Amino acid sequence: MLQAKHSIRDLEDRAEFTRRHIGPSVDDIARMLQRLGHSSLNEFIGEVVPGGIRMPAPLALAEGVQEHEALAEIRALAAKNKPFKSFVGQGYYGTRTPNVVLRNILENPAWYTAYTPYQPEISQGRLEALFNFQTLVSELTGLDLANASMLDEATAAAEAMTLCQRMSKSKSRTFFVDRDCLPQTIAVLQTRAEPLGIEIVIGDPLAELEGREVFGILLQYPGASGAVKDYRNVIEAVHAQRGLVAMAADILSLLLLTPPGQLGADVAVGSTQRFGVPMGFGGPHAAYMATRESYKRSLPGRLVGQSIDSCGNPAYRLALQTREQHIRREKATSNICTAQVLLAVMASMYAVYHGPQGLRLIATRVHHLTSVLALGLKELGAQLQSDSWFDTLTVKVDDAEPVLEKAAEQGINLRAIDGRRVGISLDETATQGDVEILWQLFGGALDFSEVESRVSPVLAGELLRDDSPLSQEVFNRYHSETEMLRYLRSLADLDIALDRSMIPLGSCTMKLNATAEMIPVTWPEFANVHPYAPADQVAGYAELIEGLEAMLCEITGYDAVSLQPNAGSQGEYAGLLAIRAYHASRGEGGRDICLIPSSAHGTNPASAQMCGMRVVVVRCDEQGNVCLDDLREKAAEHSERLAAIMVTYPSTHGVFEQGIGELSEIVHRHGGQVYIDGANLNAMVGLCQPGVFGGDVSHLNLHKTFCIPHGGGGPGVGPVAVRAHLAEFLPGAVGGAGADGRRGAPVSAATAGSASILPITWMYIRMMGRDGLRSATEVAILNANYIAARLQEHYPILYRGSGGHVAHECIVDLRPLKESSGILVDDVAKRLVDYGFHAPTMSFPVAGTLMIEPTESESLAELDRFCDAMIQIRAEIARVENGEWPLGDNPLVNAPHTASVMAADGWAHPYSRTEAVFPLEELRGRKYWPPVGRVDNVHGDKHLVCSCAPISAYE
Amino acid sequence: MLQAKHSIRDLEDRAEFTRRHIGPSVDDIARMLQRLGHSSLNEFIGEVVPGGIRMPAPLALAEGVQEHEALAEIRALAAKNKPFKSFVGQGYYGTRTPNVVLRNILENPAWYTAYTPYQPEISQGRLEALFNFQTLVSELTGLDLANASMLDEATAAAEAMTLCQRMSKSKSRTFFVDRDCLPQTIAVLQTRAEPLGIEIVIGDPLAELEGREVFGILLQYPGASGAVKDYRNVIEAVHAQRGLVAMAADILSLLLLTPPGQLGADVAVGSTQRFGVPMGFGGPHAAYMATRESYKRSLPGRLVGQSIDSCGNPAYRLALQTREQHIRREKATSNICTAQVLLAVMASMYAVYHGPQGLRLIATRVHHLTSVLALGLKELGAQLQSDSWFDTLTVKVDDAEPVLEKAAEQGINLRAIDGRRVGISLDETATQGDVEILWQLFGGALDFSEVESRVSPVLAGELLRDDSPLSQEVFNRYHSETEMLRYLRSLADLDIALDRSMIPLGSCTMKLNATAEMIPVTWPEFANVHPYAPADQVAGYAELIEGLEAMLCEITGYDAVSLQPNAGSQGEYAGLLAIRAYHASRGEGGRDICLIPSSAHGTNPASAQMCGMRVVVVRCDEQGNVCLDDLREKAAEHSERLAAIMVTYPSTHGVFEQGIGELSEIVHRHGGQVYIDGANLNAMVGLCQPGVFGGDVSHLNLHKTFCIPHGGGGPGVGPVAVRAHLAEFLPGAVGGAGADGRRGAPVSAATAGSASILPITWMYIRMMGRDGLRSATEVAILNANYIAARLQEHYPILYRGSGGHVAHECIVDLRPLKESSGILVDDVAKRLVDYGFHAPTMSFPVAGTLMIEPTESESLAELDRFCDAMIQIRAEIARVENGEWPLGDNPLVNAPHTASVMAADGWAHPYSRTEAVFPLEELRGRKYWPPVGRVDNVHGDKHLVCSCAPISAYE
Repeated sequence: MLQAKHSIRDLEDRAEFTRRHIGPSVDDIARMLQRLGHSSLNEFIGEVVPGGIRMPAPLALAEGVQEHEALAEIRALAAKNKPFKSFVGQGYYGTRTPNVVLRNILENPAWYTAYTPYQPEISQGRLEALFNFQTLVSELTGLDLANASMLDEATAAAEAMTLCQRMSKSKSRTFFVDRDCLPQTIAVLQTRAEPLGIEIVIGDPLAELEGREVFGILLQYPGASGAVKDYRNVIEAVHAQRGLVAMAADILSLLLLTPPGQLGADVAVGSTQRFGVPMGFGGPHAAYMATRESYKRSLPGRLVGQSIDSCGNPAYRLALQTREQHIRREKATSNICTAQVLLAVMASMYAVYHGPQGLRLIATRVHHLTSVLALGLKELGAQLQSDSWFDTLTVKVDDAEPVLEKAAEQGINLRAIDGRRVGISLDETATQGDVEILWQLFGGALDFSEVESRVSPVLAGELLRDDSPLSQEVFNRYHSETEMLRYLRSLADLDIALDRSMIPLGSCTMKLNATAEMIPVTWPEFANVHPYAPADQVAGYAELIEGLEAMLCEITGYDAVSLQPNAGSQGEYAGLLAIRAYHASRGEGGRDICLIPSSAHGTNPASAQMCGMRVVVVRCDEQGNVCLDDLREKAAEHSERLAAIMVTYPSTHGVFEQGIGELSEIVHRHGGQVYIDGANLNAMVGLCQPGVFGGDVSHLNLHKTFCIPHGGGGPGVGPVAVRAHLAEFLPGAVGGAGADGRRGAPVSAATAGSASILPITWMYIRMMGRDGLRSATEVAILNANYIAARLQEHYPILYRGSGGHVAHECIVDLRPLKESSGILVDDVAKRLVDYGFHAPTMSFPVAGTLMIEPTESESLAELDRFCDAMIQIRAEIARVENGEWPLGDNPLVNAPHTASVMAADGWAHPYSRTEAVFPLEELRGRKYWPPVGRVDNVHGDKHLVCSCAPISAYE
Repeated sequence: MLQAKHSIRDLEDRAEFTRRHIGPSVDDIARMLQRLGHSSLNEFIGEVVPGGIRMPAPLALAEGVQEHEALAEIRALAAKNKPFKSFVGQGYYGTRTPNVVLRNILENPAWYTAYTPYQPEISQGRLEALFNFQTLVSELTGLDLANASMLDEATAAAEAMTLCQRMSKSKSRTFFVDRDCLPQTIAVLQTRAEPLGIEIVIGDPLAELEGREVFGILLQYPGASGAVKDYRNVIEAVHAQRGLVAMAADILSLLLLTPPGQLGADVAVGSTQRFGVPMGFGGPHAAYMATRESYKRSLPGRLVGQSIDSCGNPAYRLALQTREQHIRREKATSNICTAQVLLAVMASMYAVYHGPQGLRLIATRVHHLTSVLALGLKELGAQLQSDSWFDTLTVKVDDAEPVLEKAAEQGINLRAIDGRRVGISLDETATQGDVEILWQLFGGALDFSEVESRVSPVLAGELLRDDSPLSQEVFNRYHSETEMLRYLRSLADLDIALDRSMIPLGSCTMKLNATAEMIPVTWPEFANVHPYAPADQVAGYAELIEGLEAMLCEITGYDAVSLQPNAGSQGEYAGLLAIRAYHASRGEGGRDICLIPSSAHGTNPASAQMCGMRVVVVRCDEQGNVCLDDLREKAAEHSERLAAIMVTYPSTHGVFEQGIGELSEIVHRHGGQVYIDGANLNAMVGLCQPGVFGGDVSHLNLHKTFCIPHGGGGPGVGPVAVRAHLAEFLPGAVGGAGADGRRGAPVSAATAGSASILPITWMYIRMMGRDGLRSATEVAILNANYIAARLQEHYPILYRGSGGHVAHECIVDLRPLKESSGILVDDVAKRLVDYGFHAPTMSFPVAGTLMIEPTESESLAELDRFCDAMIQIRAEIARVENGEWPLGDNPLVNAPHTASVMAADGWAHPYSRTEAVFPLEELRGRKYWPPVGRVDNVHGDKHLVCSCAPISAYE
């Protein structure tokens, strides 16, 4: 080697990151192709992907770069942001992430690579953390029940609005909104209300509500202006006319203020960002939503409940799942799938670490500093808009511009309200020195201690809470770093995440979330930026976002992309809104029929509902393909009112349908738009482009194809991509006219949605580059077909494309086994836990099946390990089939087996302990022990417990 | 609360970090004091610590600050370093830590908080990683056997020198050192040789060795100048006269060059820094040492071997522990305790991740770029000193100064050799662009591709290795990030570290390693600095080191501190060298007697030996205190030759001896110096100062009292502190006259030792401050006394001070139980694993005992959990005592119990499975499963296997 002539080009390992990202080695790929009877990847892919939609040329993206090169590039972008000290407030505050939480949750793959806890037996750690979150919210809001987080405060408020509508006995279609609500909340409420025919009235609830019939009202508490008002009378008045009351409440203020529940509110929403989650230019953060017990079935989002396992021990699980959109489909009332789990976990741990006393100390300090600031400002001659506050002051000025400029010169941002008012919000990070600097800005130097000595309380007694929330043990036990560290480790150890084994979830694309992608997320230049910071301070973000939009346009073949939607469901919604606005702009506002194939994700019909569209279902043939005859018929029938079709490509059945071109043509012919759900984009990147082969709109899932980690069920990012004629209808900037001529209604609280995690996707695309991205797609398809090939002798594989291939996932049909043995898909899923695996997607899109998506990141060794487990399980089922093991007592129906069960002194099963827990010899070296046995779903929903009882409950 | 008047002073949580660091809450402390019959901590401590040595006033240190404040301060220090691009080489190279390794090892508490793997059953993860390290070194050096790492290349070379002396059959006292060795290596060799009476001769081995009798020789390969020479003839010649040959070899070069073992060398040493461990201003890094099988018992340091467990399954353990200094004491040949485990693990994982092909590619690229650079330089008229190289060139210049300056202007450092020569070393991070810049520096622009096309091979065939090292599966399996991540997680999961439970190791002070302390370590401004960078580029390090020295002076009461020693053993050695030099400076060079109490750490006599001192043992009384009468006698007997006494305070028996003042007086009266081993400083900080109550010298352990994590057995930092009269004898700067007038012989390769981890201690002291440090000490003592109080009804507590108290640790005597039941201390230690605990220190300082040190960081809940386990174990022993369980078959002698044992279908023990693995109910919720049963020590030493066999061995 050394004697040979070298060239530096050959010696540079340009594609190193691609090799690290893709699981199988070059040799493995050759071996797999051989098994499938192919000689090259190219030839194989040529058979799988229909020639008609193949890209003629490679992606017009740069070549990939190495990790250190991409990190250097993105560091240069980060350096263009200026993380000024923020006094802007308006829903986003400086905060201190406890370092132990930063390192051991946000930077720890055991937490961030976990999947949504649909399989409770392998998710007890994150379920407990979410249960803590719910308890926290319930305690602080004074309401019975809180969910496991919402996408942001604005969308949570919108969900509160529709909850009020559903639950109210009033016939009114009017929703009253406190003028002192956060402007971004008002903007999103307006977006959501319009298609649903809800009338929004904005006003002062203390003065302008009387005599008006409303089904509900939203109050901001404290108001955006900072004012803290007593709304008890308003709440009574709304209740008197059978309306419901929602309050958007600041989570930190609730340590001191009488909580919404005690004031009589029916719903509370808000953000938990300031509990240790960096501002991150707007997100992701966990919003919260709490309500009364009686409205539990109407609560959107996910809800963690306590149930029992097969041994009667307590166990957490997702409760009331029948509310979820994937079950309700056309009857869905919300399209929310993703929560903000990782951020909710962080916020909950912030509260666990500080405890009630610590939190109260923080709230008291913030409030006290604000009071000192206020007194000083008044003495300097400033006029305050309100004479009550928690942490925010609105100051009247002659001309806001020079004040803001002077502040900026000192590296400080105030809130620009209008020409005559500026806002100042203090937060956990505020100090005496900050107060002194702010006084200087408003004209003078004062002696802090002297002013402080004259401060008197500003909040009336009836607004102060007099109970002692958060008395639960979990909030009073882990206050040393050692205890906290061990608590975090012990929870993480209960769970299976990607750092332990493959998570072969069809449609969910659990691929590698590379460390180099994660590293920039916690850099202060990305983390500590306020979403409404002036444009000249966020040039780095602007460049990042613009670059990423361009990359995604190239990959999808569309002309414009918006990164605002902070979940796939929001992207879908934004896409349909764009279609709706497009039709309206052409005088075709009557187009309100949305065709949806029966195989669709449940989110699709839910989103259509929310846009005021009517869903018409199109049949699928027995191969799972959209029935083009039925489509022709339906399209013709609804031709005049046809708004759109929503299809997933490759189909939710995991097949590249040949008819996609014809399908688009039919819909276009009838004046409809084609919405291609990008859920399965991982099978297309670098091979074909939905924006070219027929789509007008797609939403993508950055947390699926583009490596943003699932975080245990969020954050998600769901950009929407459109062709040029729809570009102007993409969501505009929040609170004003759209940048870049985008004038669609905003769908999220922040213009750039979950901006702080966009570096992950940027890094991924930059490191993989043109060729790496295509290779990833090819290997994802190869891996799925390899699994299908290994399993097909043991289980029927449902649905294949015309060449006999699946796309990037395959469906294993367990229904025949139910007939032959009585073993259900659930039993197989739980049995996989005994083998150390997270189950594949269950009963979607077809009941009684498992959908397996290995992704390109899984190595051949891991694929084989999984197939070995599935094959061994099939052999176990055979022993039930042949009567060796009774249906009522076999390792499948009893799965998963805990260590406690295994170490029990008695053993009365027809199978041995070894067969129970070490069915394959290799498990001895790497056994995962589920902390609980099979969780009882019925019990949990019957006896709903969604928060931890306060300590007094035990006394 | 809110209605009350507030002051910002009260609301600021100034002592937050202290609360986080200390385990017990204020309430817990009150509860514990009550149990001990005390009303206040102050009063309690007054009884424990002898009044005569108490500090009259608080430490003159600043108040503590919060985590974010300390991080801001140290970030400002970091910003004063300028991490220039380094071409300096000389043993330290730029490298790229794989991000997956960075995040999941160096920044992961599961790895960095682990203890030395003396308890193999709970250490299989890190033992496997070290086994990989040994395999890596053995494969690359071509030698049979490598140890688990050394402190640095220079001390490894010194150990190689003494190994050669021990093993050589030559009577010569001369050790020949290649003139082309690294200068820092030569400096440390000279330090070590002098007290041992070894004569060092420096010369050109190819020209100046002939006719000289030597017991050994050290060659540098490639040389510091860059030259690669064929030393086969030299090696043969040395062997012919019964000398041994050690080679210091660059680890990366060994991918291409014929390895030392194949050349015939007996020992190889070197650094593995460039395998992914940042330069960090000199350390810590893992050095390596490899030798022939036949010298295995003479190999210093730790050695991991493969043995079998109680079920006959393979299991790793530390092999040949009888070599360790704590066993050999006065016969020790090395005082090494600490290895560089964390860094060795990183380096091994770098190799695992890259694999043989990846490593060879890197080596080839570096060499190729060097060859292109060399050709270009020659064409630009530069004169090269040598015409062979791997990665380093020595360029002759008219005047080095302007060349170095011009380079520095471009942010580049070259090696300053002397006025007429500069060195250039390329490394993994070097690029074509770098070569072009270097050409510019030497006068011109050249076309890279054109020069490259004319490069011809520079290394002769016989110098190129022709085998294929690293064919083991572990180096060929984990090449995707997903696989690597899972491998790291799976290993971490095998082990108990501080992130899982208390590690109550007497004398080892396993306290919290706070996240905020760890964060700065991986900042590039600390990580990417060459140890020999010009002073104006390392102002931040200088300020950090100066500040830390001042803090440590104040804490210890000494006048000067050197941070150079990179382990406690080195600090001890440096301290004794200072005493030796002091006596010599006064014309009393004959003082060579070192008094050491029988209770001392084994390192003490070993260090004394290494300084050419003779050890005289002083007896202890039955209370474990130094017998002052015996001391008086021995001191008088050796009065004229008395050099020093070495004592540990509080004693290794965990007691504040009242006689320390008198002891010092006696020794001083006879002209001796008092060396106080700082191992137990954690019981003194803020309460008493060894430099004030009698000591002339102490060494400290930053990895014990001062929060540097143990890292699985290193890094350590062992500063030496002295009174003013010894200050000038502290270790000087490496390679020249000491800074600050220090002219002692250097003991480490880098002036500031393990500089890059000093931020940890700096942060700790800064955040705790004056009061926090004292509180920590007080609670450490309280925690130990609480444990003693809880356990004393169940086990005798050995040794108490005059007030009936222990200090910061307590000794539980198990000898009576051996008599009553036959149960041994080992059985109790292994049984604790079934309860999820790491065993306390076994049989030190007294055989048959356990020494327990809880530290201040353990919470009351954790102390109780540990005591509950100990008490339950006592109840189990009672069942052996009363014959219920036979001595040959009970849960103690069979401990620890693996999951495999538990799930076995048969169970033939007199105790139940539940009693075996869930002896306490609370374990069900947090069970740790040891991956192996009790490891067979005898088998392992009899069948020594210290590296993984190459794949060919299986064919």
